[in-house]
Amino acid sequence: MDSAYAMPSSGSLSSDGAASRADSPKRLVDADLPKAIDLSHHLSRLAVHRQASSLKQLYQYMTVPGMITMAGGIPSPEYFPFETLSASIQLNDTMPLDPPRVPAKPKKSLLSWLFPSTQDTSSFTIPKYVSSTDPKVIQLATSLQYQAATGPPALSLFLRQYVERIYKPAYADWDVLLNVGATDGWNKICGLLMEQGDAVLVEEWTYPGAENAFIPMEVEMVAIKMDGQGVLPEHMDEVLGTWDEEKRGKKRPHVFYTIPTGQNPTGATMMGERKKAIYEICKKYDVIICEDEPYYCLFSGEWTPKSHKSHKSLVAERAIEAEKKEGKDGNEAFIAALPPTYLTYDTDGRVIRMDTFSKTSCPGSRLGWFTSSPLFIERLTRATEAGTQAPSGFATALTTTLLQTWGFDGYVRWLRGIKATYRMRKTWICDTFEDVFHLEFEEAGSFVSNPSVLDVGMDLGKGVTCYAKPKTGTVEAKWDEKRGLTSKRGPALVSFIPPTAGMFIFLGVHISEHPDYPALVRKGEDAKAILMDKLWRELAENLVLFAPGFGFDAKGPHAIGGEGMGYFRLSFSIATYEQTRTAIETFAKVLYKFYRI
Amino acid sequence: MDSAYAMPSSGSLSSDGAASRADSPKRLVDADLPKAIDLSHHLSRLAVHRQASSLKQLYQYMTVPGMITMAGGIPSPEYFPFETLSASIQLNDTMPLDPPRVPAKPKKSLLSWLFPSTQDTSSFTIPKYVSSTDPKVIQLATSLQYQAATGPPALSLFLRQYVERIYKPAYADWDVLLNVGATDGWNKICGLLMEQGDAVLVEEWTYPGAENAFIPMEVEMVAIKMDGQGVLPEHMDEVLGTWDEEKRGKKRPHVFYTIPTGQNPTGATMMGERKKAIYEICKKYDVIICEDEPYYCLFSGEWTPKSHKSHKSLVAERAIEAEKKEGKDGNEAFIAALPPTYLTYDTDGRVIRMDTFSKTSCPGSRLGWFTSSPLFIERLTRATEAGTQAPSGFATALTTTLLQTWGFDGYVRWLRGIKATYRMRKTWICDTFEDVFHLEFEEAGSFVSNPSVLDVGMDLGKGVTCYAKPKTGTVEAKWDEKRGLTSKRGPALVSFIPPTAGMFIFLGVHISEHPDYPALVRKGEDAKAILMDKLWRELAENLVLFAPGFGFDAKGPHAIGGEGMGYFRLSFSIATYEQTRTAIETFAKVLYKFYRI
Repeated sequence: MDSAYAMPSSGSLSSDGAASRADSPKRLVDADLPKAIDLSHHLSRLAVHRQASSLKQLYQYMTVPGMITMAGGIPSPEYFPFETLSASIQLNDTMPLDPPRVPAKPKKSLLSWLFPSTQDTSSFTIPKYVSSTDPKVIQLATSLQYQAATGPPALSLFLRQYVERIYKPAYADWDVLLNVGATDGWNKICGLLMEQGDAVLVEEWTYPGAENAFIPMEVEMVAIKMDGQGVLPEHMDEVLGTWDEEKRGKKRPHVFYTIPTGQNPTGATMMGERKKAIYEICKKYDVIICEDEPYYCLFSGEWTPKSHKSHKSLVAERAIEAEKKEGKDGNEAFIAALPPTYLTYDTDGRVIRMDTFSKTSCPGSRLGWFTSSPLFIERLTRATEAGTQAPSGFATALTTTLLQTWGFDGYVRWLRGIKATYRMRKTWICDTFEDVFHLEFEEAGSFVSNPSVLDVGMDLGKGVTCYAKPKTGTVEAKWDEKRGLTSKRGPALVSFIPPTAGMFIFLGVHISEHPDYPALVRKGEDAKAILMDKLWRELAENLVLFAPGFGFDAKGPHAIGGEGMGYFRLSFSIATYEQTRTAIETFAKVLYKFYRI
Repeated sequence: MDSAYAMPSSGSLSSDGAASRADSPKRLVDADLPKAIDLSHHLSRLAVHRQASSLKQLYQYMTVPGMITMAGGIPSPEYFPFETLSASIQLNDTMPLDPPRVPAKPKKSLLSWLFPSTQDTSSFTIPKYVSSTDPKVIQLATSLQYQAATGPPALSLFLRQYVERIYKPAYADWDVLLNVGATDGWNKICGLLMEQGDAVLVEEWTYPGAENAFIPMEVEMVAIKMDGQGVLPEHMDEVLGTWDEEKRGKKRPHVFYTIPTGQNPTGATMMGERKKAIYEICKKYDVIICEDEPYYCLFSGEWTPKSHKSHKSLVAERAIEAEKKEGKDGNEAFIAALPPTYLTYDTDGRVIRMDTFSKTSCPGSRLGWFTSSPLFIERLTRATEAGTQAPSGFATALTTTLLQTWGFDGYVRWLRGIKATYRMRKTWICDTFEDVFHLEFEEAGSFVSNPSVLDVGMDLGKGVTCYAKPKTGTVEAKWDEKRGLTSKRGPALVSFIPPTAGMFIFLGVHISEHPDYPALVRKGEDAKAILMDKLWRELAENLVLFAPGFGFDAKGPHAIGGEGMGYFRLSFSIATYEQTRTAIETFAKVLYKFYRI
């Protein structure tokens, strides 16, 4: 009972009461679906010891009409300095669904041309008081007051609809819970599931930001090999099946951290069959799947080279079809073309999904949500009460009103515009590589040490290798071309898997092809590290800044890369069309000089 | 190096770089003051293992003009749906400094009368782009983008000025760090300083919301006795001096959690002398002081009963003086009248102060800040990067622009209005007790089991005991009055220490005076629990909801209360003048019936 009055003291008593009214009854569960199984043995000691604020004693009276409540220490909204909040917002259909492959009239900013009139905005105003008891109504007197950790009921209602219609979970009693962004979400999940000294399954290349949460807990990363479609089921099965607790001195990992769509840094996307296989393995070894999905709606399918008449994957076809249509059908097609999530296969309730508004609205909203089982959602709610509490009311009020202004279908149309825009940017950078280098398209990227891993059907995840363009016009060049030797000219320089989602190209540098590489190796030096650092610095000196790849290395066995391959991560999310071309052209120049071509 | 690219991946690289420019050079430290001593032995194992994002390699190039950065995965602001944000805000001098003791024309809401024209507002608009390199300029393109965990430089600059001018820390190299409110702040401090199974020093009555953070860590509370001026130095000295690690099976506590101003729930305020004494003891036993100060600016000094010509304490005099003056002098007097903080005595850097905008702006901002030593601020920054990251950009942009619109002195004037408003509300409720009950004013509250503890000089913290009003008019009443027996009529019902700050009255019920009490005790029942619950329910049935006091009990020895005393916490922060009078009048009726008077 010690923390029985946490909420009233923090003032959330009344809003908690409000939430308990507005949120209950909880969402109606689909009777045809199974309920989540009991996975409470996964909870950390910390999570087990969290206590609920037992306010029932007060609840029963809080909603009584005419009650004068002096129980909660909450300030009067009359003392909030903010009387109204207004925003001018873009129209939900501002972003074109089929932007040109090359901007017709390149300006400093492409978008300033895509959106000729910056006056094409709508606006809304949120008043301090609204006389309505509809929980969906947003007013500052409530938004800027203490709120239950579950946040404004209106936002949860919208998100449940979103999850229901787009993710279609495979069990009945899932729910959502707001957090202050995926970094906060993952940090809370680590506290929920991990003990000091545990081991956690990650992708062979992974997001270092996620490591910040469990490294201080001295949790060891166990890397699972990947290909262009994410982690390899057979390797995960092998790692878990052969785990020797004695030898490792650690329990077998029971948590898997993954970025299934537009993986950071590789850009790989796990499609349905792959997820299904991984889910079965996680079920077999009782592993909790934590899917971090910031790039889910940035799923843009396959890159089709200008020069290259590859048959398109079904997924790519459907995605492009979706863009072409308009209105509701387009929305439905867009939703149908998205990869099925782990929730689609989760009959147990062993998936904790993290979504965020950072890429679909703005990072500064610091607003995201969990979708998971009642057990995990309840424990995460207790952790939220003791930490962040509800996200900022400024963020939830403005985001919820934005969503209400656009409506559900309007928001989906906005997401389609975002997706089309990132596909446009991906096409820019891939096309630029095609213009600047001589490309060879492989059935299995030569930079994948074990090509067999790519024999997974579909076009997604096939590699592209870049060579120096042949010097055209010369007699030798013409002669070589006749003999089909063009592509043999010069060493393989860089390779990449055209990303199927997200905002990154993970660029493999064939560093072992560098003239100095063998000598350095003979001298016992770390040839890769030395030469990659040299190349990175020469690039920076030429005003192009890439992220060095070693920071993303989960320090395990590699299917992507490995010996003789160095990596850069290139983000195509913010550079303009012109900057993109300048950067890749500069990269080529620096690379030729570096390789002494 | 694993987490080397956390920030670029999370997109904060560029903003981190921006911050590293805007924030550095760090604030100029006062050469005359000592620097914080090394207290790193207080860090938890978790805190020690946190890693910095080593971006130096990238930093050196990020600010180079013309650099095309593809290193950070940040979305283009052109895709943020928000084009502008606007707010209409109250004028900083809206709240009167000397509101009437009794509202002249009571309306449903007093404030709607105090602020006749709701049109008295100003407004501001935050654009998406501002062409300026001034780090103090707020634009949505930056605020709604990923930011360094330290948040917008403009807000830190304002807060450092605030800390410098109002708290005047006693060492040179202190700094500030934003958090998402005091609950988040304290949660991060528990992770910074505590290990599972530790013990922590708290006030004998404490805030249960704070317990939510360390109870899951199985950390034991060690209660220190209090009086109307907060914890008792002699008792803290005794607890720490006689701590037997063998017998307790625990290390001596090295963390003290305190709410020095308007303590929750007691309403007690520690003045300078008391803080100085506590600080010396914490220095002697190497204890870190964590001061949670949501009510600091709500310090309203002494309550002067209408009927009662008590000489006013110096503090009260100065506070009232401050209200009377206008303009800058008034501000200076307001600042001078505030209790000195622990920072004022902290020459070691062993204080971590938590401030919040919840009571001075709005709780929904979820915005607060730490003030502490470089060591603690740096480790807390690492924890922030791995969790909440920077607070919501909506909250920081709107709050910073609000502060910039009012200016520093304008904000201090706003705080004076807030303070005056809470003093007004405190006076309402205390006056109502005086109108409804017969009051006796004690040199030492009779409900303090050890009266000597109140012999601390000053008027602050003296108790008031409430008796049933004598039935006037009757012959007996007149006769009794002549014989001065009025106050002897009936049992002592409730007692309280008029709060010197904050929003709570901690009301002691002399439950042992209840006719059934002795019989219940004889029967071996928990007479206090049974009767207090009965009284609480009867009150609720009569539409008055108080917070039961047992939830605030730190389960230690009591100087305030103890055997025979039960408690309610009454908040006077939100009820109107009329509701306040109705509630206390109802309370009296219920009480008389309950005591069978």
